[in-house]
Order: sequence, then C-alpha cells, then structure tokens
Amino acid sequence: MDSPAPIYLDCDTGIDDALAIGYLLKTPAVEVVGIGTVSGNTSAGQAAENTLRLLGVAGRSDIRVAVGEHDWLAQPYGGGAAHVHGDNGIGGTELPSVQQHPIDESAVDLLLRLSHEHSGTLRIVATGPLTNLARALERDPSLPERIAEVVAMGGAALAPGNITPVAEANIFHDPEAAQVVVSADWDVILVPLDITMQHVFDEGHQGALLDSGDPLARALGDMLGHYFDYYQGVFGRRSSALHDPLAAAIAAGVVRLTRAPAVPVEVDTTGGPGRGQTIVDMRMQRAGHVDHPEVRTRVALDVDPEDFASHLLGVLLGTPA
Amino acid sequence: MDSPAPIYLDCDTGIDDALAIGYLLKTPAVEVVGIGTVSGNTSAGQAAENTLRLLGVAGRSDIRVAVGEHDWLAQPYGGGAAHVHGDNGIGGTELPSVQQHPIDESAVDLLLRLSHEHSGTLRIVATGPLTNLARALERDPSLPERIAEVVAMGGAALAPGNITPVAEANIFHDPEAAQVVVSADWDVILVPLDITMQHVFDEGHQGALLDSGDPLARALGDMLGHYFDYYQGVFGRRSSALHDPLAAAIAAGVVRLTRAPAVPVEVDTTGGPGRGQTIVDMRMQRAGHVDHPEVRTRVALDVDPEDFASHLLGVLLGTPA
Repeated sequence: MDSPAPIYLDCDTGIDDALAIGYLLKTPAVEVVGIGTVSGNTSAGQAAENTLRLLGVAGRSDIRVAVGEHDWLAQPYGGGAAHVHGDNGIGGTELPSVQQHPIDESAVDLLLRLSHEHSGTLRIVATGPLTNLARALERDPSLPERIAEVVAMGGAALAPGNITPVAEANIFHDPEAAQVVVSADWDVILVPLDITMQHVFDEGHQGALLDSGDPLARALGDMLGHYFDYYQGVFGRRSSALHDPLAAAIAAGVVRLTRAPAVPVEVDTTGGPGRGQTIVDMRMQRAGHVDHPEVRTRVALDVDPEDFASHLLGVLLGTPA
Repeated sequence: MDSPAPIYLDCDTGIDDALAIGYLLKTPAVEVVGIGTVSGNTSAGQAAENTLRLLGVAGRSDIRVAVGEHDWLAQPYGGGAAHVHGDNGIGGTELPSVQQHPIDESAVDLLLRLSHEHSGTLRIVATGPLTNLARALERDPSLPERIAEVVAMGGAALAPGNITPVAEANIFHDPEAAQVVVSADWDVILVPLDITMQHVFDEGHQGALLDSGDPLARALGDMLGHYFDYYQGVFGRRSSALHDPLAAAIAAGVVRLTRAPAVPVEVDTTGGPGRGQTIVDMRMQRAGHVDHPEVRTRVALDVDPEDFASHLLGVLLGTPA
C-alpha cells in the first residue's frame, strides 16, 4: 500500500473549510502535514483558532497550524463574511477550547519548509484567498519544482460569481495573488463555482451528521445550520454548496476528475466591474473537451462519484462507500 | 390587421446581417423604414454598399441607407473580420452593382429623424457595434422617449465570448458605446451568444437557399459558404450561428421570448482582460427565472419556435411555417 500523500492545507476556516478539514482527517490516502490560515471567511487569526479547535475535537492536535497573511496583496482584509459563516467563522458553533497555539512560524514559512521536507510529493489544497501561496512564490520562486500539485477552490468559468456577478469570493478577495498562482509553472487544478454549486448538503445530510456518535461529525452538522440560512437565499431551499470539501477530495485523489480541460486562466486585476473574475478561455470547449497545449491549469467541471455529497457524508460519518 | 411596426436597422453588413435584412424584408409584420451602417464586420462604407446591393437584389431600393460612424467611441475601426465575413463583408459574394447611393445624412441623423416620424412605435434592431446608437443618445438624450424597444445582438451572459474568452465582437469593438446604450432609460433586449450560438444553419439549409427561385435567397446561400469555413473551426462542422437574424426576428415580434430575465448589465470598459465583456448579473437565476426590479434590460435566453433555423429558412424561401 502506498504511503499517504502529504498535504499542506491553506484555509480560512470557514464552515466549508471545516468540512474539508474533516474530510482530509478521515481520508487514509492523505496525511495533513500542516495547515496555514489566511483571512477570508474570517480573519487569519480566527481561522487558526477555529482550526485548532476542530483538530482538538478530532483528536488530532498533533497537526501544526500556522497563522498566515492577515491582509491581501493589494487590499486590506475586509472583515469577513459573517452573514455566510457566522461571527466566529464557523456558524456560531462553540467548539471546546484547546491549549494548543499556532506555531511560531508564518504559514508562508511552514509551506516553504514542508515543500523541502516532502519535496516532489507535497500537494497544496487552498480553500481561501491565495495570498499565502503568492507570498511563498515571491519568497522562493523555486517552490513549484517541489510541489506535486495545487488544488484551489476558487473562481468561476462560465457560472455566475457569488460575490459579484462574475467573481467568486476567494479570488475576489485577492485577485493579485490568484494571478501569481495561476501564472506559476506548476500543475494547478481550479475548482470553480461551476462544479461546487452542483454539489450540496441538505437537511438530510445535516441530520445524519447531528445523529452521529462522532463528535467532529456532530460539530460539522451544527455549523451547517448557519450556512443553510445563507444558502436559502441562493438556492431557494435549506442546503449548502460543498466548495472546499470538493477541492479537498480532488486533492486527495479519491474523487476523480472526469472533465477538467487544461485551459488558459487569467485573473482580472483591474479596478473595473470584472475585478476578481477568473477569465477562463472556454471557447474551444464548444467543439468538445479540448486541452490547450502547454497549459498547466485545469478547471474541474465534472467528477466521479457524481453524488459527491453522499461520498462526503460517508467519509465524515466513518462509513465511506 | 395592425399596420406593420416600423424598424430602424443599424448594421455592419456582414453575412449574418444580410440574413437579418432578408428576414426583415420578407416579414409582413414589420416595415424597415431606414438602415444605418457602422464599422464592425466590415467598414461602415462597405456595409452600406453591401446593404444597397442586397436591397437591389430584393427589389427594395426604396429603403434609405445611411452611412454611420466609421470609428468607435474610444478606438479606431480595426479593419473588420475578413476571416469570418470575407474581404467584402459578405463572403466574397459579388452582388450586382446598383445606382443607389447612401443618403446624404448620417446614420445618427437618420435614426433621430425616424424617431420623430415614428415616435413611440419605432423599434431599433442593432446587429453591429452600438456606436451610432450611443452617438444618437449623446446628441439627443430624449431619444429613448420615442423608441418602443431596442433589440441588440451582442454580448455573452454565461456563454464564452467569440473574440476574447469573455467578449462578443459587437460589444468588444465599442464597449463604451454599449455601456451608454444599456445605461439609457429604454427597453433593451440583448441577444447574446448564449442563445445565438444555439441556432445554426447547416449545409441542408444552405442547399435549400441555393436551390431557391428567389434571387435574394440564392445570394444568401452563396455567402454562407465563407461563413461555414470559419465556423468549421468553432463548431467542428460546416454550419453557422444565426446571430443577427435571431435579433431581427425577436424585434419583429414573430419569434417570442420564452426566457428573458430583466437583469443588470454592465459593460467592462477597462483596458484589462475583460474589456468588452457584458457583465450580466445571473446570480439570482440560480433560484429560477427572476426579474430584477427597475431593470429595463432583458437578456434573451430561450425562444419559441425552438427550431429558429427552420423558421428563418421558411421566411427566406417565402414559405413560412
């Protein structure tokens, strides 16, 4: 049996980030070797506290958590998305406090160090703004040589945005960082709203989590209530998109990409109405699935299993299909 | 029986503009009371010559044609799209020359005059860049009060662009003009690539046109060969999108909109990678067909009849269903 693939998670925990953490912790194919935080759904500091408490609930306080960039490359942190993720970032759920603190190292330093410790095999999963990744690339342009793959939840190819008509929140918050990341010479899988909005938890999934004997599953089920309140206005029913856990599952290699063309991606870094849009060249897709030559950024559009929500629930309950 | 609705056509003739002209001339529900040209597929001057010759073939040299703006608001005319529409704009087809000349009046003057002559009933169909319309609005801000409706082929809501990853050619060539037009206080129906790329002529339609006893139908069939050459690379088969005739048919009221939400539209006028994109706020459509209050711009997404190509062919052959 292969040894688990090492994963560095960069997140802004966040309700769906919490689901992604839960998924990664319960997936034997991967080992989370470090977590860095960034401001997005909540501040980098609060995201680290949320992450440490989640790890405590999961009995995995051995995993190192580093606070990353508080402000974005070209704009200060905007205060988070309390209407989506609650005042504390995790839907107001009060997790037991823990004695652990973030490590005495920035997320950028942690990522660079892990890239040497796991050179050639380290996978990056990014579920927040890409500020830490961009700073790490600035600091050490040789980073891509040591990274197996970057999987980033963010952007929209042909789907509408979720924070402007065309921009998704992670990319919108730091478009300059996103442009640095998609321009670097490494394999990037972008997991955009086109696919993440197709995979949802509803009250049935939530109920199963709340009924679980597993404390982490119960905590995740509790958080979902706040997330459903927000998505009620988006989908017209109590449910929630599974943005970050889908990116985590793709990075873990458990969920397989069935359509993910290699296509040019450019991020709109203007101050215009398109700021933060991932401009994805989908024109050639009109004639079928077409990979552009020389392009190392793939856009995830379809996955197997098609019912990712059931797969995610099974993993979180400890009963994977 | 109602008297025919008066239509001012603003075009850059162009192969699909020629189809639109053919459709309007053969549709009893409308009367084309004037045609203005603009640079786009070809120059405004060449477009006028093409239009006059088409009218000659159709035996409708009574219709006035005015040359409009050669350059766009913020950029000079770029030389046209010979690879799409041929060197002369109509696929290299040589139509018989005519004695008629463009009238001694600009397209902007013609439009403003017609708006008074047909105040309250005039419909505008725009199948090229929106430069003339923007100039007319600048010249006379009261123009919208006298216009029943503007139907403009252009833009992309969620579909890819056709000249950049996100921009459609008509809007891309003069984004500043498009922004003026969608910001004015009148009813605009935008007919974007989302729908126009769904309706195509193939070699069967072309063959029927070429076999027709009608000289205009034969001329249109002849032009399509060049258009098919271009679209071979887009669709992977010899066929062509029916952009402009679809807009004409919607303006004529013969083709009915079955899905056309009233949604905010903003044109990207930056110098960034999104320049020329119609930024359409489709977020609320996730919960179903939703009209935004106070919005007077509709985006055409579905029509009846669903088989518009057959309808168009029937009209051009003089055998409408």
